[in-house]
Amino acid sequence: MVTKISDKKSKKLGKSTYQFENPPTIISSATVTGPKEGVGPYGKYFDKVYGDTIIGEKSFEKAEAKMMEDAVNLAMQKGDVTEKDIDVFLAGDLLNQTITSNFNALQLGIPFLGLYGACSTFVESILLASMLIDGNFAKKALIATSSHNSSAERQYRFPTEYGGQRPPYSQHTVTGSGSAVLAYAGIGPKVTHGTIGKVMDMGIKDPWNMGAAMAPAAADTIVNIFNDTNTTPDDYDLLVTGDLGLFGSKINEELIASQGIDISKIYQDCGAEIFDSTQDTHSGGSGCACCTVMSLGYFLKQDKYRKIIVVATGALHSPTTYQQGENIPTIAHGIIIQK
Amino acid sequence: MVTKISDKKSKKLGKSTYQFENPPTIISSATVTGPKEGVGPYGKYFDKVYGDTIIGEKSFEKAEAKMMEDAVNLAMQKGDVTEKDIDVFLAGDLLNQTITSNFNALQLGIPFLGLYGACSTFVESILLASMLIDGNFAKKALIATSSHNSSAERQYRFPTEYGGQRPPYSQHTVTGSGSAVLAYAGIGPKVTHGTIGKVMDMGIKDPWNMGAAMAPAAADTIVNIFNDTNTTPDDYDLLVTGDLGLFGSKINEELIASQGIDISKIYQDCGAEIFDSTQDTHSGGSGCACCTVMSLGYFLKQDKYRKIIVVATGALHSPTTYQQGENIPTIAHGIIIQK
Repeated sequence: MVTKISDKKSKKLGKSTYQFENPPTIISSATVTGPKEGVGPYGKYFDKVYGDTIIGEKSFEKAEAKMMEDAVNLAMQKGDVTEKDIDVFLAGDLLNQTITSNFNALQLGIPFLGLYGACSTFVESILLASMLIDGNFAKKALIATSSHNSSAERQYRFPTEYGGQRPPYSQHTVTGSGSAVLAYAGIGPKVTHGTIGKVMDMGIKDPWNMGAAMAPAAADTIVNIFNDTNTTPDDYDLLVTGDLGLFGSKINEELIASQGIDISKIYQDCGAEIFDSTQDTHSGGSGCACCTVMSLGYFLKQDKYRKIIVVATGALHSPTTYQQGENIPTIAHGIIIQK
Repeated sequence: MVTKISDKKSKKLGKSTYQFENPPTIISSATVTGPKEGVGPYGKYFDKVYGDTIIGEKSFEKAEAKMMEDAVNLAMQKGDVTEKDIDVFLAGDLLNQTITSNFNALQLGIPFLGLYGACSTFVESILLASMLIDGNFAKKALIATSSHNSSAERQYRFPTEYGGQRPPYSQHTVTGSGSAVLAYAGIGPKVTHGTIGKVMDMGIKDPWNMGAAMAPAAADTIVNIFNDTNTTPDDYDLLVTGDLGLFGSKINEELIASQGIDISKIYQDCGAEIFDSTQDTHSGGSGCACCTVMSLGYFLKQDKYRKIIVVATGALHSPTTYQQGENIPTIAHGIIIQK
């Protein structure tokens, strides 16, 4: 067999950005959180806020799975679709073997592609869903991500019941889940571009210091987005990063400024926003759910933001690699959304 | 923005199979294994066989990462490409947070999409790479998967140093890695179709009994492939599953026979083949590397096989879900390859 390539038209711009021919639409979305997120400054924007973090389940892992189940069902309901209308489910989470996503995929019965991008998974899933839709492989795709403070802290650092002290630059893993339905047509924000990140390591070894570890990956992807699409911060209403937190977002801003690009007028970070200074969350929120619930629940819903860059960052270490003395490798994926 | 959908031509056939317009080519591949795989019946087909499983590294995790590094470098070398020629790297493995893939992505510096499909990851990565190439997002994609007996057994069951007894239906996680370069054109086997699996659970709770747990997912995907493409086993030279092992592959064959389809003339299982009965591997091989090294190293290289179905199965549980009393959810993704 010989492939004819004469009519091959690449959708790639520059280094690592892809422009969609028919920008897929986010036709519906839903967000679910725990109580701490609910009493935070953005609590009223989340669709469902639970009053505790175990929500009647037997374990924190099952509580996390239930939150994703809620988010997925609510997103489908809002989009007026059922499992049968969806071609593919793309999901991932922080837990070992991405079990939250796997058990939800089991319940849904939709063909499933499992992803792992740590806290970058929200954008990774939207980016891939958009590629599958724009590539004529799917008409509708469902995405979901989640994190849970008690399941994530136990796995990555210490059980929350232990009550250990946390350094001032640490972040608080957000408890919650978000889900969205993307379609080849419909009413809603459109995903016009996506940028795949590359893995970076700037020498951070401290698993509490995620913001500093991830900032260089965020900066690299953001600069790539501007360069690849030949745009500047003036072309956008909002640039939002996932979970760099108060310290990491400052580092990100400075790294980008050092390349001559001033993002200060359009820049916000979900991790720096989701909690306020009275909530004892130190540098802010983190986790897959942080970027997901803030983007889907708040930023994409605000009329004033018409052209938005969302960059979700992920720390790709494991407790094993940290214990074996490795640095923390990180990644950041980006999407451009237009209304 | 309004999307025009008048010229929307879906590549989807039936339930969950995708037909590529310009079937991507596997232009090169490479396989690396440990010593046990090297002295097995297919040892001579692997590109590099190490004499021990720690290969001079400080941990089994680092040894696994080194094997993937070897496989990736050798695949790129054989394909006469370097990192700069590759648009995207898609990889996943069995270790928590898919660290083997993440650290290799760091070294490579290629835009990276992390996947988790347990032992189904080999086919998941080829399927997604093919979609990105056929969707005009990438011209060349690199994929890799790996597993390591000692890192996987320690994580999922017991450290191998413990020397525990294993039940007769258990399988031996293959130590090794495989990598391939896919391109929009070139010489080599073409990926003509892909089928995304859905997660299934037939009630198996025993983490030693992977073959029985995964067989129903394999059978479901295989029957979907035949139905979706309107073909029968007579249309193929070979149907190969990833790591069902001696017992699981029998169950798979029987499940498919119960639906009136006889695959016996074309069916082989990588897990049942990679070791022989003298190697004390009970029901055979398993792990991401099993399907990868056998498919890339042997099956795709045999001239007699011109039209091949490869179905890789994955068990999507974690030690936590098993300890919490959950069943083992499983998945199987499939691709059709033609020469």
